[in-house]
Amino acid sequence: MREEFRIDLNIVSQLLVDMAEAVRAAMRQATRALLTADRNAAEDVIARDAEVDSLYRQIEERVCDLLARQAPVASDLRALITALHVAADLERMGDLADHVAKTAVRRHPSPAVPAELRPVFTEMATVADRIANKIATVLSKPDATLAAELEQDDDAMDDLHKDLFALLLADDWPYGVETAIDGTLLGRFYERYADHAVNAGRRVVYLVTGETVTD
Amino acid sequence: MREEFRIDLNIVSQLLVDMAEAVRAAMRQATRALLTADRNAAEDVIARDAEVDSLYRQIEERVCDLLARQAPVASDLRALITALHVAADLERMGDLADHVAKTAVRRHPSPAVPAELRPVFTEMATVADRIANKIATVLSKPDATLAAELEQDDDAMDDLHKDLFALLLADDWPYGVETAIDGTLLGRFYERYADHAVNAGRRVVYLVTGETVTD
Repeated sequence: MREEFRIDLNIVSQLLVDMAEAVRAAMRQATRALLTADRNAAEDVIARDAEVDSLYRQIEERVCDLLARQAPVASDLRALITALHVAADLERMGDLADHVAKTAVRRHPSPAVPAELRPVFTEMATVADRIANKIATVLSKPDATLAAELEQDDDAMDDLHKDLFALLLADDWPYGVETAIDGTLLGRFYERYADHAVNAGRRVVYLVTGETVTD
Repeated sequence: MREEFRIDLNIVSQLLVDMAEAVRAAMRQATRALLTADRNAAEDVIARDAEVDSLYRQIEERVCDLLARQAPVASDLRALITALHVAADLERMGDLADHVAKTAVRRHPSPAVPAELRPVFTEMATVADRIANKIATVLSKPDATLAAELEQDDDAMDDLHKDLFALLLADDWPYGVETAIDGTLLGRFYERYADHAVNAGRRVVYLVTGETVTD
């Protein structure tokens, strides 16, 4: 029974890692589509969001099946509840990559991001990618130290978000309201992507240490 | 055992209803604070978000305790997993009311919403309130018909969101970029609040009918 549970839990963990890698790849590609006005790349991200959703459903079904068949308690139960929460965060990260890709499609063939904003979005995408990579790593091999690093990455994302607003609100902002609205929403998508990754990281820390990380 | 489970599940349901009513009250008050530049009302919403978070933790703990003690299967297990998901959506709705309140505080004593945008935000708040009320009702007494109505409410919110963008992007928009950014973010907060409510509604429909509502 116990051995069977371990095997099933490992399958769930592997599905979570697959999901983390999928939403990392999605945001990388969405960013590239955004910054190079690559419509095909953007449409590919949008089409492949269904794969992330499918992984989410598989995880939910397996977790519910395990709860019903094995009636786990204590740390086994906690691991399954954590898997449900982490999967929900990852699913939302996939949606946010999809939103970035849709912004690129909506403005195509124009770039949605003007030259002045490219550096800050490039940085936001770099931090988002670093965070997504850590989540995939932490899920493969739970590590409270690495998960706690996500808090610093989240601070870096918040600083970049403030930098973005400073650019949008500069007196000499030359691009008008529409580009400012796109920039505002895109900034929010990257920031929320990071937030969900950090939430997922907190859950993993809690699973490993039993201690809640407060923000 | 079974009777004990019913009693415990009813406590979880009541906590969910309390949470739904709390996030409904929070968004009503946040809207009033926003539209009347009432700083005290806004700060009260921000302070009381901790109550919503506390309800969320209570629900999680009770659900985990029930899973461990009673090892439910089939519809009982489904009810508990639904409770976890609905609680997560409600927690996020509380956060979004908090974000609206924080926008009101940030711009105080100026109103964050200029005259031209007041009607559309008043409408968005009305739809948000209608949705939150339906969630509280559906949680008290599961009702697939009422939950399905949420889909129409969600469409109404999406239409209002489009109206908002049309106002922000009008050639004669007189308020500059900062007010457009506030309007963009506020619109997103109300829209996401509705999305989470509709997600919660879909979960309740699934619980009652066993059928997934697709969007």
